[in-house]
Amino acid sequence: MRINNHIITIFGGTGDLSFRKLLPAFYNLHAGNKLPESFHIVVVGRQDLTTETYRQRLRPWLKEHSRCPIDDESMELYLSYVSYFKMTFTEDEGYPQLKTYFNSLDENARLLYYFAVSPSFFETITYKLKNHGLTHNAKVIIEKPFGNDLVSAIKINQTLTDILGDDNIYRIDHYIAKEMVQNIYTIRFGNALFKEIWGRKAIKSIQISANETVGVESRGTFYEATGALKDMFPNHLLQILSIVTMEEPKSFDAHHIHHQQEKVLEHLDIKNVQEDVIYGQYTQAINSKSYRDEANVSPDSNVETFVALKLAIDNDRWRDVPIYVRTGKRMHKRSTEVVLEFKEELNQTSNLIIIKIQPDEGVYVRFNIKKPGQKNDTETVFMDFCQSCNYENRLNTPEAYERLLHAAMLEDHTLFASFKQVELSWKLAEKIINGTHDNPLYFYEAFTSGPKESYDLLRNDNNDWIDEEVLGELSS
Amino acid sequence: MRINNHIITIFGGTGDLSFRKLLPAFYNLHAGNKLPESFHIVVVGRQDLTTETYRQRLRPWLKEHSRCPIDDESMELYLSYVSYFKMTFTEDEGYPQLKTYFNSLDENARLLYYFAVSPSFFETITYKLKNHGLTHNAKVIIEKPFGNDLVSAIKINQTLTDILGDDNIYRIDHYIAKEMVQNIYTIRFGNALFKEIWGRKAIKSIQISANETVGVESRGTFYEATGALKDMFPNHLLQILSIVTMEEPKSFDAHHIHHQQEKVLEHLDIKNVQEDVIYGQYTQAINSKSYRDEANVSPDSNVETFVALKLAIDNDRWRDVPIYVRTGKRMHKRSTEVVLEFKEELNQTSNLIIIKIQPDEGVYVRFNIKKPGQKNDTETVFMDFCQSCNYENRLNTPEAYERLLHAAMLEDHTLFASFKQVELSWKLAEKIINGTHDNPLYFYEAFTSGPKESYDLLRNDNNDWIDEEVLGELSS
Repeated sequence: MRINNHIITIFGGTGDLSFRKLLPAFYNLHAGNKLPESFHIVVVGRQDLTTETYRQRLRPWLKEHSRCPIDDESMELYLSYVSYFKMTFTEDEGYPQLKTYFNSLDENARLLYYFAVSPSFFETITYKLKNHGLTHNAKVIIEKPFGNDLVSAIKINQTLTDILGDDNIYRIDHYIAKEMVQNIYTIRFGNALFKEIWGRKAIKSIQISANETVGVESRGTFYEATGALKDMFPNHLLQILSIVTMEEPKSFDAHHIHHQQEKVLEHLDIKNVQEDVIYGQYTQAINSKSYRDEANVSPDSNVETFVALKLAIDNDRWRDVPIYVRTGKRMHKRSTEVVLEFKEELNQTSNLIIIKIQPDEGVYVRFNIKKPGQKNDTETVFMDFCQSCNYENRLNTPEAYERLLHAAMLEDHTLFASFKQVELSWKLAEKIINGTHDNPLYFYEAFTSGPKESYDLLRNDNNDWIDEEVLGELSS
Repeated sequence: MRINNHIITIFGGTGDLSFRKLLPAFYNLHAGNKLPESFHIVVVGRQDLTTETYRQRLRPWLKEHSRCPIDDESMELYLSYVSYFKMTFTEDEGYPQLKTYFNSLDENARLLYYFAVSPSFFETITYKLKNHGLTHNAKVIIEKPFGNDLVSAIKINQTLTDILGDDNIYRIDHYIAKEMVQNIYTIRFGNALFKEIWGRKAIKSIQISANETVGVESRGTFYEATGALKDMFPNHLLQILSIVTMEEPKSFDAHHIHHQQEKVLEHLDIKNVQEDVIYGQYTQAINSKSYRDEANVSPDSNVETFVALKLAIDNDRWRDVPIYVRTGKRMHKRSTEVVLEFKEELNQTSNLIIIKIQPDEGVYVRFNIKKPGQKNDTETVFMDFCQSCNYENRLNTPEAYERLLHAAMLEDHTLFASFKQVELSWKLAEKIINGTHDNPLYFYEAFTSGPKESYDLLRNDNNDWIDEEVLGELSS
């Protein structure tokens, strides 16, 4: 597909995200011939750098983080399109020069702004861009959190929409762009085998886990203001959940996909916030600090680093199927996955479909067969299709950011969140937050599977988290 | 389970079946401690042998065909229970001595007769056993064919039932006892994943193939009187078909299983015998004779060595799902398997579930996932659970005959055919035979996949036999 010429401007371009993700992703797009003939990347920052010193700093990051092969020649060719523009984006001063600079690069290019800054600056920058005539022919990519709560999300969205138009706002939730999240559409709707069984008649529960082994690292200040629920639930987890549970869209364009996701989010609810929400916080382990001992964290902080929830969707497909969601830091294993647990038949072990999102990518199916032999003993077997195990696949799989940046240039909204999704997600998150001020905080040792109360939440329904231990030796 | 004492008497005990299957199977049962405390195997034959010379002949067969480890000691211990009894079973003369012999072995044992003879002798032997007081406390195992047509099947069954009682007749169809045929119950009814999709809503067609690479070998006379249809269809193929398509039985005892198999056979039919039945006969290939050149085959024989049929079941689960069945000799590959082909979704390649019965045993599932990469290309992947690949499984898997003989001793009818099944199967077979006298016979080269008209049969419905070539590289 022919892509318009673009000037990509990264606000906050000296941050981690730019070095680790954005600039390597553009490099990969460049290496894959996916960029327009004329393109320029303008990194905006306050630091006293020049294009030369910025490029100098960037080189080792590109070497380390690029998926595609990189040599001196390809690196320098790519870097020739990257320039650094020193300005303070909260002040008007730099904007007229920025405009002049854009015109010197390409007068007719589409302007694509990437706000790699705190959401509290989204409106400021947008107003200043507008006031300086820089919003014509412009699009903006913003990262979650899309505000800090429902009210701020609505306000920010209103400002950006008024100035740029909803079609020009690309709300990144990079989980949507993950290979195996996008794969859910094909798995669900491209297979008669799975399509018919995807609902309450056959499925006993859905489990969505996003577990990390890392702690809060250098993000103590951010995390103290956020916590596990706000950090992961109204965005990543609800995106996955809505893709797993939505009705089949009439077509797979952004409009129809968003419509079905929104519809299922409208029917998603939590029955009893006191009982159905379990908060946890990690304590210390050997060589690892407790959350309260982390930098920039209050020593008596009650912020959760783990949350498990039980949700329900009130529609024909999902009525009475509990949907369990959990996310935590300092868990014993890094793993984001969706588990569909099926009803037991003939007292057999339940069937499972597990969609592994990260770090492993693949589909795991567990079912029962008769054990070879004379008696009617059965055994539980599994079939594992590992997408990421294939080395060539791995090399050919673009990173989520690569896919997202490319889609934004192509003006394809399918990989981005609609504001209605954001709004519905915040609504549910706020209902949970407001209803759980008195919920206890359970402590769990770092590198374990979270507080035992998270297991009780499921056991009360005669369910259980399908952890690796539950899968047992079969999966190893 | 405690087993009654048994005297097992094999009529036709000097034939191939006894040496290859029956005596090795009893050895394995013996090695596995599955025989009663008192058991005797009496081999009845006309040949001028003694117990000593019969045992002498048997030893190398046991060495070669026993699944369980065998050494001199275990062999001789087993052989001490095996004796040879010379008599002509069509004459009265030997029966009184046989009775005396039984009494000398064990007066209270259950008598289990195995008729390893042509069905034309079933009634003769049964009458003589009755006349000589040898049917009290007796059971009989008979092999297919259960007669040569519907009329003879009914007649034989009437005689045997009158004398022995239906409960004492064990109709062997050794396909029922095959590991993966028995596994179909667990696969279908022990998995929510498969249970719900097993029907017309998701399934496009069912294919059942039983292909052999061997020709008619030394059985020319038998085959000339039988042909592929009679040899395989009303027994093995319809047994598999009915287990694949039956409704779930209330419980998995013989009564309820047979009831559901009979019910589905009652609704099984062929719409247009002229169009829906394709006969074939193999011609020569390098180092391999044409059927007409085989020993004891007429040089202008029109007997089919291949048949392909299209059937239909008129019930809610299967209405409008074509069921294709084929069997052939001198095919390019030995393979008995059931293929469920699912409807295409979103123009994707169809999903498949393949149940491999022999020689490979296992379950193969094919479905679609998104191809890793930026575009929404998909790829077809497969998961293969190979039961027979596991060496330990293979060692532990009893042969069909082992299972059947054990079940007959335990008086478990689940692995045997009911007479109603036999009757319904013959009815359909006769309808086909009587309706296809004018159907052409298509010739196919030995070691190919049969006549091309067999493919046309499916292509007329926009279907295709799912052969290895169709599965393509994916399955290799």
